[in-house]
Amino acid sequence: MPKSSQKSNKQTTPKDSTNPQTKAQNQNTLITPRTLSGFRDYLPKEAMAKEKLIASLTTVFESFGFAPIETPHLEYAEILLRQGSDEIQKELYRFVDNGGRDVVLRFDQTVPLARFITQYRNELDLPFKRFAIGNVFRGERAQKGRYREFTQCDFDFIGSDSIGCDAEIIEVIYASLSALGLDEFTIWVNHRSVLNGIAEHFGIRDSKDLESFLRLIDKLDKIGEENLAKELQSTLKLDSKKVDEIISLISIKQITQRDEFFASVAHLKEWNAELKKGIEELESCFRILSSVQMATSSCRVSFAIARGLGYYTGIVYETTLNRLKSLGSVCSGGRYDNLTRSFSRERISGVGASIGLDRLLAGLEELGVLRGKSTSAEVLIVCMREEFIAYAHQIAQSLRRSKIYTEVYPQATKLQKSLSYANNKGHEHCIIIGENEFSTQTLTIKNMTTGVQFDSISLLRVIEIVK
Amino acid sequence: MPKSSQKSNKQTTPKDSTNPQTKAQNQNTLITPRTLSGFRDYLPKEAMAKEKLIASLTTVFESFGFAPIETPHLEYAEILLRQGSDEIQKELYRFVDNGGRDVVLRFDQTVPLARFITQYRNELDLPFKRFAIGNVFRGERAQKGRYREFTQCDFDFIGSDSIGCDAEIIEVIYASLSALGLDEFTIWVNHRSVLNGIAEHFGIRDSKDLESFLRLIDKLDKIGEENLAKELQSTLKLDSKKVDEIISLISIKQITQRDEFFASVAHLKEWNAELKKGIEELESCFRILSSVQMATSSCRVSFAIARGLGYYTGIVYETTLNRLKSLGSVCSGGRYDNLTRSFSRERISGVGASIGLDRLLAGLEELGVLRGKSTSAEVLIVCMREEFIAYAHQIAQSLRRSKIYTEVYPQATKLQKSLSYANNKGHEHCIIIGENEFSTQTLTIKNMTTGVQFDSISLLRVIEIVK
Repeated sequence: MPKSSQKSNKQTTPKDSTNPQTKAQNQNTLITPRTLSGFRDYLPKEAMAKEKLIASLTTVFESFGFAPIETPHLEYAEILLRQGSDEIQKELYRFVDNGGRDVVLRFDQTVPLARFITQYRNELDLPFKRFAIGNVFRGERAQKGRYREFTQCDFDFIGSDSIGCDAEIIEVIYASLSALGLDEFTIWVNHRSVLNGIAEHFGIRDSKDLESFLRLIDKLDKIGEENLAKELQSTLKLDSKKVDEIISLISIKQITQRDEFFASVAHLKEWNAELKKGIEELESCFRILSSVQMATSSCRVSFAIARGLGYYTGIVYETTLNRLKSLGSVCSGGRYDNLTRSFSRERISGVGASIGLDRLLAGLEELGVLRGKSTSAEVLIVCMREEFIAYAHQIAQSLRRSKIYTEVYPQATKLQKSLSYANNKGHEHCIIIGENEFSTQTLTIKNMTTGVQFDSISLLRVIEIVK
Repeated sequence: MPKSSQKSNKQTTPKDSTNPQTKAQNQNTLITPRTLSGFRDYLPKEAMAKEKLIASLTTVFESFGFAPIETPHLEYAEILLRQGSDEIQKELYRFVDNGGRDVVLRFDQTVPLARFITQYRNELDLPFKRFAIGNVFRGERAQKGRYREFTQCDFDFIGSDSIGCDAEIIEVIYASLSALGLDEFTIWVNHRSVLNGIAEHFGIRDSKDLESFLRLIDKLDKIGEENLAKELQSTLKLDSKKVDEIISLISIKQITQRDEFFASVAHLKEWNAELKKGIEELESCFRILSSVQMATSSCRVSFAIARGLGYYTGIVYETTLNRLKSLGSVCSGGRYDNLTRSFSRERISGVGASIGLDRLLAGLEELGVLRGKSTSAEVLIVCMREEFIAYAHQIAQSLRRSKIYTEVYPQATKLQKSLSYANNKGHEHCIIIGENEFSTQTLTIKNMTTGVQFDSISLLRVIEIVK
């Protein structure tokens, strides 16, 4: 990630320096190029990695029959504001446009989805499976690895209560991460009814207390058991015995095989209807999952997954990279009961998940799963004289037609210079066209890693060597 | 394209209805779902077509060694405002963010590129070839087929004066449109020096007059020769004889072979240095192009191409679809001499072009080049009973592993309902799992186009049939 030059420039370019009145007199002074504070640029290496990621994910989503949709980055404020949490309200990019409209840059892709579903209700067949890969904006306090514009990759299965949908979203997460070359990850699955049932058992019934309870559980990973115990005691006025019991319950994680695990928690189903429902739906979901090929250890129950507050009502999940737990969840989601409540009286439920693309990218980078090249081209063609350029273009076209990505260095240049260009960008081969190659209509090719060179060979031979 | 419900709602939802004070009392009233005025949503069919378009273009760009970059949608106003035309200034989405920063949603991807190049000058090797596919925002008066947010697809070759770059950008345009299944298109090429030279020859020397001259020529297609003649007379105070000569000159189009054409205009090189330079550079460019395989009629000189005002200084081009000329240019561009002038004293030239993705998409739709499906899945699996869902998921996974995109209908349903779902969305095959299929671990498959059905066959046989 490029360093932002924003800080050091703050003094020299005051915020109001773009006053239109001063535009004319500024015409000859230079503007310091800088990225907006809290935002980022992607240089070729990162942008290419991101693009490959998106292409892989798109293929997975489409292989499951999810179709893309696209909504604008900008929406009427009234559309987005009702469903956003209070925290999000403070972080809005909200303004009045030239036409006097109160507008907001979207802060997620879920509220626009709710708007979309209701607006096109008559044109969409339910169940409706969509994915959307797009940027969202949140004016958070800038911090390392967090940006005010970031890419979210959402996939949702709308309009069916079937537990098969919940299982399928988990299958998609599994297939997505596998397609990216990851194998050591865990999808932690829970059911909101399990947590509701535990809360009920310990007398936490008031909806505000329940909210606090869920919010605190969500913090377990961050603050640890001891602090969680303290906070549960102080916030919910529970005695330490109850708190200990609660903590031992939410610490339940599936480490054994599926059947053994569900046998071990079967007694909880007797406690109340919520726990019964939660555990039974988890069982149904895992029964479907066990019919597909999937490393069993990569999808497990954890009673500590709460997925904050908000709209989740059924099965929920988070995904962590085993070798990079500190990164947090790279893909989270769950079932929600009434997506479109702000726009329609019709109850439309769904289940979906979201991949934080920038976070996942950072994770893949740290794990060394990404290749580090600044060019998509395998081959660079270099001409020793300007008159050979047309020949180079001809050869390049032939190589591209053989699916070999090829770049032509645009002008005749010293060999040393172009070889170092190829080295910096990461071309695997350099084709050199000099006097001899041009007159005999041959090519010289040099492998940039091994240094091995073949002189004055045919195009066919070059294609063989590169492939 | 979905109809916007915006107009009909205007009366019922006044612009200031999202006042935060009224939020609480609104909590139980429904919000009318509507897209922001002048913006659009993409439903699956269009979004999928757009996504395929982007994937094809990305492959072409990368096969030439162009690498992606990404810059934020939002920039400091001072960065974007200097280089935007006066017309664009009026259409800006500009506002002050929560941190008091004067910011603008980008209106193109060229000014951000100039900022990017200067900011990362030391990390980028020149020549630098980048592409960027992203959305830009212009608050134009809304009209049919024009939206306030639209997708631009830019590719630029930065940091080389070589005419090989100009030729390559044209090759990329050719390869891009070919990759999209288009064959009947024309890339019209001109050189700004040709027009400068013609202007000079007729005494148009003042830079303001030259600007008017270029702007008028740009209107030729829209207003026709007769009106152009009138406007040239009135604006530039030219007599009708000169105007006639000018019009016959800018009407010169290459209809013959390359050599014949350049012989026919060779005498113009004698008129002045500008014309000489312009025609010679066009010749060099076409010499390179003639070395690659390209339908010769699809790339031709036209002295009427001006590419408006702005930053172009060398070879310029526009691309029209032969069977849909009314659409206007789907891909335009050219050489600019000093991209980074606002940010740096270093002179960095380049050449690039931009595809208006939404316009091209509309064109492809009108030409019937796009397939009209709302799903990416070829196969829909339907279960007659809930207990077969796990088996369906298992089969679906096997099909996906054989690269057959497969959707599972999420719950047991009446056959009629799921077949009509498949018909609406465009699945090619339906796999049906009933009592018999489940007990014998076989499948029944129905071709949704022909109606042909195979009962209780093996998975292997199903894969053969679908493939």
